[in-house]
Amino acid sequence: MTSETPKAYWTSSVSDIAPEDIYVRGYPLRSLIGTLPFSAITVLMIRGKLPTPGEARMMDVILSSILDYALHKSGTVAARCVVSVNPQMTAGLGAGVLAAGEHALSPENTGRFIVEAHKAWKASGETMDAFAAKTVERLRAEKARVPGFGHQVFRGIDPRAQALRDEAVAGGVWNEIGEVYEAIHRAFKVAANKPDLVINDVGMIACILAGMGYSPQEMAGIAILSTFPGLIAHISEEMGSGVRNRIVPDETAHYPRARHDLKADMAKAGWKA
Amino acid sequence: MTSETPKAYWTSSVSDIAPEDIYVRGYPLRSLIGTLPFSAITVLMIRGKLPTPGEARMMDVILSSILDYALHKSGTVAARCVVSVNPQMTAGLGAGVLAAGEHALSPENTGRFIVEAHKAWKASGETMDAFAAKTVERLRAEKARVPGFGHQVFRGIDPRAQALRDEAVAGGVWNEIGEVYEAIHRAFKVAANKPDLVINDVGMIACILAGMGYSPQEMAGIAILSTFPGLIAHISEEMGSGVRNRIVPDETAHYPRARHDLKADMAKAGWKA
Amino acid sequence: MTSETPKAYWTSSVSDIAPEDIYVRGYPLRSLIGTLPFSAITVLMIRGKLPTPGEARMMDVILSSILDYALHKSGTVAARCVVSVNPQMTAGLGAGVLAAGEHALSPENTGRFIVEAHKAWKASGETMDAFAAKTVERLRAEKARVPGFGHQVFRGIDPRAQALRDEAVAGGVWNEIGEVYEAIHRAFKVAANKPDLVINDVGMIACILAGMGYSPQEMAGIAILSTFPGLIAHISEEMGSGVRNRIVPDETAHYPRARHDLKADMAKAGWKA
Amino acid sequence: MTSETPKAYWTSSVSDIAPEDIYVRGYPLRSLIGTLPFSAITVLMIRGKLPTPGEARMMDVILSSILDYALHKSGTVAARCVVSVNPQMTAGLGAGVLAAGEHALSPENTGRFIVEAHKAWKASGETMDAFAAKTVERLRAEKARVPGFGHQVFRGIDPRAQALRDEAVAGGVWNEIGEVYEAIHRAFKVAANKPDLVINDVGMIACILAGMGYSPQEMAGIAILSTFPGLIAHISEEMGSGVRNRIVPDETAHYPRARHDLKADMAKAGWKA
Repeated sequence: MTSETPKAYWTSSVSDIAPEDIYVRGYPLRSLIGTLPFSAITVLMIRGKLPTPGEARMMDVILSSILDYALHKSGTVAARCVVSVNPQMTAGLGAGVLAAGEHALSPENTGRFIVEAHKAWKASGETMDAFAAKTVERLRAEKARVPGFGHQVFRGIDPRAQALRDEAVAGGVWNEIGEVYEAIHRAFKVAANKPDLVINDVGMIACILAGMGYSPQEMAGIAILSTFPGLIAHISEEMGSGVRNRIVPDETAHYPRARHDLKADMAKAGWKA
Repeated sequence: MTSETPKAYWTSSVSDIAPEDIYVRGYPLRSLIGTLPFSAITVLMIRGKLPTPGEARMMDVILSSILDYALHKSGTVAARCVVSVNPQMTAGLGAGVLAAGEHALSPENTGRFIVEAHKAWKASGETMDAFAAKTVERLRAEKARVPGFGHQVFRGIDPRAQALRDEAVAGGVWNEIGEVYEAIHRAFKVAANKPDLVINDVGMIACILAGMGYSPQEMAGIAILSTFPGLIAHISEEMGSGVRNRIVPDETAHYPRARHDLKADMAKAGWKA
Repeated sequence: MTSETPKAYWTSSVSDIAPEDIYVRGYPLRSLIGTLPFSAITVLMIRGKLPTPGEARMMDVILSSILDYALHKSGTVAARCVVSVNPQMTAGLGAGVLAAGEHALSPENTGRFIVEAHKAWKASGETMDAFAAKTVERLRAEKARVPGFGHQVFRGIDPRAQALRDEAVAGGVWNEIGEVYEAIHRAFKVAANKPDLVINDVGMIACILAGMGYSPQEMAGIAILSTFPGLIAHISEEMGSGVRNRIVPDETAHYPRARHDLKADMAKAGWKA
Repeated sequence: MTSETPKAYWTSSVSDIAPEDIYVRGYPLRSLIGTLPFSAITVLMIRGKLPTPGEARMMDVILSSILDYALHKSGTVAARCVVSVNPQMTAGLGAGVLAAGEHALSPENTGRFIVEAHKAWKASGETMDAFAAKTVERLRAEKARVPGFGHQVFRGIDPRAQALRDEAVAGGVWNEIGEVYEAIHRAFKVAANKPDLVINDVGMIACILAGMGYSPQEMAGIAILSTFPGLIAHISEEMGSGVRNRIVPDETAHYPRARHDLKADMAKAGWKA
């Protein structure tokens, strides 16, 4: 509990409670309220260090850039289904936050690729372009996808990614980590002969967050945080809809209707009557 | 940890770990495996007491009586949506078990009604039928629904409920608590002039579980346990389907497409340019 | 999907997807990014309407006023336990958001009381003070607690609540709903002869959010949102701690160690050997 | 919905609803209730095929072999923490089932190793022992752990694993997949010169379930199912304990209490006063 008990089973530096106030990352909670915007506090909480205005602004922009995706977001559908049966905000949020991962929403895999690429470059002693060319060669030989590249519509530039990058440069948070990723992107366009291939918005978010020091898992958390107000809105809309027990309407479902005889099958499987 | 430390922060009688074995409700785990069927162990775990064969059989029958409800079960849809993005069995199960409550799956509310009705009868000193008549009169004056009564199709008797009741009588677990509920059912049919109104299967499950001593919240847990193998099956089927990001197809969704002008609205709301 | 299909199974006004952009509550996502702070967007998402600067500022202050509570917050402990076994950010968040409710974190019950009190006053046709006096009389007769009153330490004024109220007045979001709650507070202090009883911070948050039109369930969501960055920080700290399988240390646990004989008890319970 | 709509967005073969009954894997639900034990139905649900008595018995034994682990199980602690704040059975279960994974409870990783080893052996065309020797050589070169080997206490034989294996042989579900795993185990004991190294219980469960055709993710689900009655019991015990807001007692926690000056740090970080 105090510095006299360093061998305690639990240790936490996120906040601590004193008689006069709660200290959040060492700052009195009361001094923070109304002084720093919530997005700046988000940085303080996760990174453990007071952000610069540029870092705070960058987080604000990133938090505002995912938000919601109508009923084309699996977590929203899951959350709404849950509260249609169990009308509790917490239950809906619990289901909704689980729906980020390998196939959507999470910049985690992209972030992991970028963090590892940067480390490998530092260890390589090579120029960025030489390293990028070799990396791309290896990835193509392994037929591996580079996460964060490509978009269904955008060619040449993804305007959302470009806006994020502009913010990062303006806020002073663009650095070497982004440069490595862009070097790989340049090398990839050449090697794959795809001069119009873009870095997409998830790629750019992962890239900027990696540059700011966030771990890939923290990136997942931040992406989910961005969608949290929308999740609250959807859950609230669902609970107000009057619909109970959201299901899959039969028009969109196919049930291959096999029919079996239990008695006959049990006899065949060796069950005694 | 031992009986010398009764003031410990946590206390649990569910199981304890000794060097030679884990003791589950006081019985060595190794002695249980293969000796008692899982449904009997379920009773032992939850009620804390070795069941009779009749109690174990009753639990087995109840666990087998919900199981699955195709894609007409909100929790199944939620679980499948989650794993279509985040293909982890645990994530799917986490979402699925949240979807039981006020509007479906859970016998909790019915169980609460039955437990309280039985207590009130005991306290009343009245005959069961007199108590039931007064209870029904009061409920009707309050325009309150009696949970567990009525079915869309079945009239006179719900065959599923009847089969469960027969098991309860045969297993020696039918008792006074069920009798009170049935007395209320009889009085209600007369007062409402609905001679064909049935006690449905959820009503009967709640009634039998109440008679066996389960709390309403434990009834919710048992109902979810019944659906757990089906949930595993659906999650596994979904992860094998190759579909990513389950959404609501546009054909079944309506989006009222309001369009607003941000700049104009900000000016009106008092934001400085 | 369009206004031609108003009878679609699902309806949502939170956002919709057009070829050129995603529209969030009717505003193009790209126009929002970097224009409105995340806390303002939070209001837009949940309330469906562009906030005034005062409403946005109020939300920012409320989001900054809970944040974290060290290891004295059950949801934090739950989240850390989960990721000590299953090191996934989503799994930790899923557990953490479930731990808000009746006994902590959530202003939901307080919010419900305030919303209902305000409605009852409107319906009563009485002066606020007369209504408040009667309400307090009734609550005291029912021995009901008034949620949001009282604090372990603060007497006369809770400085956190006072600061929140000052913000609400300054931001133009303080209104009749807060007045009704304060009238009840005044009447309660007199009737209970507790002149120093405070409205605490949860009471004030619920009161302000009610005045801004949030539903009690939305208040729960907002409280959880305030703690979300801290939750990410704790999960990240836990995954970096190297501890696997967080448990309850034996020093803080008591296991009443009953021991039973399975064979003997089975025979007694009627199981055949 | 019918075989005329094979292109429906959703497809499911787990169950389907007909006017007369629900068909579970093609069998009428009403015919299953009371006919097959719940553990047999578990197999039917997950594997989609009526089990033999030996397969059903094996599942029953496996479901009975994990059950609970006092307060030394992270998921139990998480579930109890959640309901100490939000006393809902579903919320507790939601948190509890998330705590299975890489570091505990789940046979998933072991199962994946076994399934892949078996496939690799089939593809190799080698004898089992030759394949095993090469596999062990490779694993040792990569300094990879073999999941499922070793125990803190047991030497030579893990009696729990042995009992499970005996059941598998007796039930006719022991096969080639288990043989491959045991061949690797033999080869490993020789190569590592650890003649007493055991296959532990998780290794054996994974090995038997792999032999019965379960996927690694399904194994995780089955392990969680085994603990489900215990989870219900713990949640119920917690809600009955009267303790609110389970936290980490200060005696077992260490908070490195850094203190910072917000104004000074903001100035340094470039925030304007």
